[in-house]
Amino acid sequence: RVNADRLWDSLMEMAKIGPGVAGGNNRQTLTDADAEGRTLFKRWCEAAGMTLAVDKMGTMFATRPGTDPDALPVYIGSHLDTQPTGGKYDGVLGVLSGLEVIRSMNDLGIRTKHPVVVTNWTNEEGARFAPAMLASGVFAGAIDLDYAYSRKDPDGKTFGDELKRIGWVGEEEVGARKMHAYFEYHIEQGPILEAENRQIGVVTHCQGLWWLEFTLTGREAHTGSTPMNMRVNAGLAMARIVEMVQTVAMENQPGCVGGVGQMFFSPNSRNVLPGKVVFTVDIRSPDQAKLDGMRATIEARAAEICAALGVGCSVEAVGHFDPVTFDPDLVASVRKAAEDLGYRHMNIISGAGHDACWAAKVAPATMIMCPCVGGLSHNEAEDISKEWASGGADVLLRAVVETAGI
Amino acid sequence: RVNADRLWDSLMEMAKIGPGVAGGNNRQTLTDADAEGRTLFKRWCEAAGMTLAVDKMGTMFATRPGTDPDALPVYIGSHLDTQPTGGKYDGVLGVLSGLEVIRSMNDLGIRTKHPVVVTNWTNEEGARFAPAMLASGVFAGAIDLDYAYSRKDPDGKTFGDELKRIGWVGEEEVGARKMHAYFEYHIEQGPILEAENRQIGVVTHCQGLWWLEFTLTGREAHTGSTPMNMRVNAGLAMARIVEMVQTVAMENQPGCVGGVGQMFFSPNSRNVLPGKVVFTVDIRSPDQAKLDGMRATIEARAAEICAALGVGCSVEAVGHFDPVTFDPDLVASVRKAAEDLGYRHMNIISGAGHDACWAAKVAPATMIMCPCVGGLSHNEAEDISKEWASGGADVLLRAVVETAGI
Ligand SMILES: NC(=O)NCCC(=O)O
Ligand SMILES: NC(=O)NCCC(=O)O
Repeated sequence: RVNADRLWDSLMEMAKIGPGVAGGNNRQTLTDADAEGRTLFKRWCEAAGMTLAVDKMGTMFATRPGTDPDALPVYIGSHLDTQPTGGKYDGVLGVLSGLEVIRSMNDLGIRTKHPVVVTNWTNEEGARFAPAMLASGVFAGAIDLDYAYSRKDPDGKTFGDELKRIGWVGEEEVGARKMHAYFEYHIEQGPILEAENRQIGVVTHCQGLWWLEFTLTGREAHTGSTPMNMRVNAGLAMARIVEMVQTVAMENQPGCVGGVGQMFFSPNSRNVLPGKVVFTVDIRSPDQAKLDGMRATIEARAAEICAALGVGCSVEAVGHFDPVTFDPDLVASVRKAAEDLGYRHMNIISGAGHDACWAAKVAPATMIMCPCVGGLSHNEAEDISKEWASGGADVLLRAVVETAGI
Repeated sequence: RVNADRLWDSLMEMAKIGPGVAGGNNRQTLTDADAEGRTLFKRWCEAAGMTLAVDKMGTMFATRPGTDPDALPVYIGSHLDTQPTGGKYDGVLGVLSGLEVIRSMNDLGIRTKHPVVVTNWTNEEGARFAPAMLASGVFAGAIDLDYAYSRKDPDGKTFGDELKRIGWVGEEEVGARKMHAYFEYHIEQGPILEAENRQIGVVTHCQGLWWLEFTLTGREAHTGSTPMNMRVNAGLAMARIVEMVQTVAMENQPGCVGGVGQMFFSPNSRNVLPGKVVFTVDIRSPDQAKLDGMRATIEARAAEICAALGVGCSVEAVGHFDPVTFDPDLVASVRKAAEDLGYRHMNIISGAGHDACWAAKVAPATMIMCPCVGGLSHNEAEDISKEWASGGADVLLRAVVETAGI
């Protein structure tokens, strides 16, 4: 078993960097706080005897050598970046549990045949730069490096410029590495494990996703002196689309979600009907046909809504991944580790996207989950117990050691 | 008649300050561009022989003396500030036509019994700081000076600090002046005069307004892993309220409008259900009972919508004025001036709010309007012809001279 106190202390130490406003974190990708978090992680890895490499997306790979010089490494990965009002555990738990696995193997004198690499993927959250899981997407060959570099945050700054600015452009070609296996440990971010009173989620699948960025074009006009029948009201079209997305998600129950998190009005003045409204619809399902069907329905109905109001409508897919089925052997190894350790476990489908989804394209991959209070995540109030945190790390240690071989 | 070319040249000269992105202007109140516009206006006033005074709200009063030392001044007022994506004429036409009236009286050697004062009111637009018509509201005693100073723009900067920063805090107590009469000349900002082929709108009334700032409180949560039935979705509540405002406005046709121009999501991340949505509903009617009825209906229905979703809802009235009836004698003098000059005219109700609405609380007041292309305003494409511009200025000159006495 891992050292639960040490893991917890490291979590609390990392949480001091980029503090939020309500007890959580704002350590968005490629900010100064992100750079500070990376430096602390690098220091910890080196102190644990690992060697750091960085690729051109800024992803950090800390390697503990194996005993077989020809064996491909076993990877443990997640992310240290957060949402603007994020929790202390989303992503961070996975990276620091990877570090804790190494520290525990050091303590216990365990040498593995395969090297073990702890990975901090850049821009998992997608909060500053869409899409989410950007660096792992480039790693898996699903996203172009130039496209990734060109992505802009709401202030118009590009990913490439910001990565350079914080000094974390590495030498290594992205995707150059081959993986023996990939593990990711994460909080559930949903309510199921807590409700079912299970310590461990054995993650068999991950939902697929579409992020559809709508740009609605109305006519800027005075809110007072423009008669109702002369309005080309992009704000009203937006309202109807938000309601329609809700309807489509409900029509596709169970097993689908849909919502809108990001919204920009322009010129955003109280007495000007918006000339432009930009917002992103987030839809997900573990069922490929349902996912793509929802997308088609939403785009068709949005076009009708806008046409009826004379509002221009364009849609860009700024994020996408298909539903994922994780590697059955690795899934079995996680289940067995949980059983051997006596932890209550259940199969679960990940509702959130993870770097494991892209890793699964190029390697056997799977995930481990622990509960979080009230299923709450992407909220500064996100919370887990020390026991939940270390339980998953115990399973991770056991599954990794088994897969990496002694 | 005024000098149409000189008026037009001054309009074009002012439009060079704070240029927009599409041919209009971004000269928002208390910005550096606003300061530059003020300085140019001051220079022009002084060159025309006027004396400038500035009050504690930064409102500029340029006086041309009268022949009777005891006579109260006749005021001509409007504003030089613009929307973020505003036109070249909204407000500016009124201030520079006031200047043109003085210049023309100078040319023609006209001396009036009453002094004539050309006024540039601060923050008419209300784009940076709600409410609109802030300085005239303080002047009329309807708004507190301290409240005005404390108003914040979206970046959190206060009106008081910004007024000081641009160096336009005057000495004069706000509202210290008494007015013999107040005239305001403005583009219609609506489609009626153009559609009816009239050069002059004789403004008899102005619609009343409520600006209702809604703050909806949901629960920040992951868009992917939060089941539909566990969401406390402030964005969905917002969509329903925007649609409901449209419905309420349509239920109150004719003679009412309602819409939403400003919207903020927080934390505004694609994969976070918003914890907070803030937006402003703008409703107007010339009918007091309808106006207040709409407000009550909207607040009641919004409360129901939010309750059904578990979303918190608070409403603050950040702008308000009652419907206004302008002074019958001044209205008649405007109508007579238009007739004497042979301009096609009609009675009209102002759809937009104007500083004249507050001036009407403390003095006989009225307005003159000219058409604008397609009724479009609060849009950089706002347009008028030189003939429309000077026609209204001719009427203004004649009505002011009549009222100020020779
Ligand atoms: N795990 C997580 O919150 N990832 C962010 C990408 C997503 O929206 O699912
Ligand atoms: N005239 C004008 O656009 N004033 C701004 C205040 C309002 O919204 O009516």
